[in-house]
Amino acid sequence: MNATLDLATIDLLGVLAYGELIAFERLATDAQLAPTVADKVALATMANAEFSHFRQLRDYLVARDVDPIAAMAPFVDPLDHFHDSTTPSDWYEGLIKAYVGDGMATDFYREVSTYVKDDETRLLIQSVLQDTGQAEFAVLKVKEIIADEPSVGGRLALWARRLVGEALIQAQQVAVERDALLELLVGTGDLAGITRLLKSITDKHEERMGLLGLQA
Amino acid sequence: MNATLDLATIDLLGVLAYGELIAFERLATDAQLAPTVADKVALATMANAEFSHFRQLRDYLVARDVDPIAAMAPFVDPLDHFHDSTTPSDWYEGLIKAYVGDGMATDFYREVSTYVKDDETRLLIQSVLQDTGQAEFAVLKVKEIIADEPSVGGRLALWARRLVGEALIQAQQVAVERDALLELLVGTGDLAGITRLLKSITDKHEERMGLLGLQA
Repeated sequence: MNATLDLATIDLLGVLAYGELIAFERLATDAQLAPTVADKVALATMANAEFSHFRQLRDYLVARDVDPIAAMAPFVDPLDHFHDSTTPSDWYEGLIKAYVGDGMATDFYREVSTYVKDDETRLLIQSVLQDTGQAEFAVLKVKEIIADEPSVGGRLALWARRLVGEALIQAQQVAVERDALLELLVGTGDLAGITRLLKSITDKHEERMGLLGLQA
Repeated sequence: MNATLDLATIDLLGVLAYGELIAFERLATDAQLAPTVADKVALATMANAEFSHFRQLRDYLVARDVDPIAAMAPFVDPLDHFHDSTTPSDWYEGLIKAYVGDGMATDFYREVSTYVKDDETRLLIQSVLQDTGQAEFAVLKVKEIIADEPSVGGRLALWARRLVGEALIQAQQVAVERDALLELLVGTGDLAGITRLLKSITDKHEERMGLLGLQA
């Protein structure tokens, strides 16, 4: 297909690009739930940062003669399903999704990127995975509401569990359908590495929930 | 309030800033209606351009010690009402809204900006009013669907009339409540100027509808 990028790398860049595009769209949509104009501005600013990540990934693919639309295509359904099945019903669910959901996705992609042999691609991925400020913002806002209304904590903890469950379902489906992407992980034969990856993602998820004062 | 910007100018920058912020949000939301990923990318790109206009206006206010949230506050309700009462029910209604609604708003602001005495402010306004590519995109897509399904044309023409009606209702409300902004126009005593402004906006609206092959 392409002289410079192998299929697994194209897959990885494709899923990242669509992930950023849809993260942009959902953050911008959730901005409608913002209780104040200042909160709306904060969310719109993050959405915008996601879009500029999308643009970097797309331009990188185009510069290497890869059609970004084709590269994203296999991941449109799983990512759309994830988002459709986890539409936040209020502002706080939206914040938890931005924090917990994007946090887990970022951890996963960052770990996977260490398997990418090409230096330039690895650096690009690590750069677009930089936090756009949503973690700090979400923690601040969610802690405020839990301090005001402790009962909200239980509901948001359950919501976070549902996000993790839905994410795993979709990730599994992608793994089954995209051999090349799976090979990138499993093909290394580094099974201890995979266990380490899962453990690292779980640990970081628990850490994040801990920062909110919620149980994972 | 402020040594460098008078109240009318702050009002004008405030309504423009909130208009851009909400245009960003609605374009990004409408991207969910896009029939293809390529269309989604096109709309997201436009949404992003609106956001960078918002950022320019906000930074300009902040640099002049004006609180942008306070400057936008009087216009939140009228603009939200406009958008809430004109939520597109499909992709094509969204395109018409982006084209006809933003087109009229742009014409209006551009005319008003000619009354702003401060050169720097006037140039800023004219720069953020530059088309973000949505006109050409909307015309292309809407003409395609009308060629395919001529019956859609009538529905979209009615939708455009509704947009104009709702916009006039909200504009009138703003005019009643914001003396300073109204003064900027009427205070010049240039009633012939106002008539010319309304005529110019109406003419351009008819031109835009004509480009779509629809009656205004």
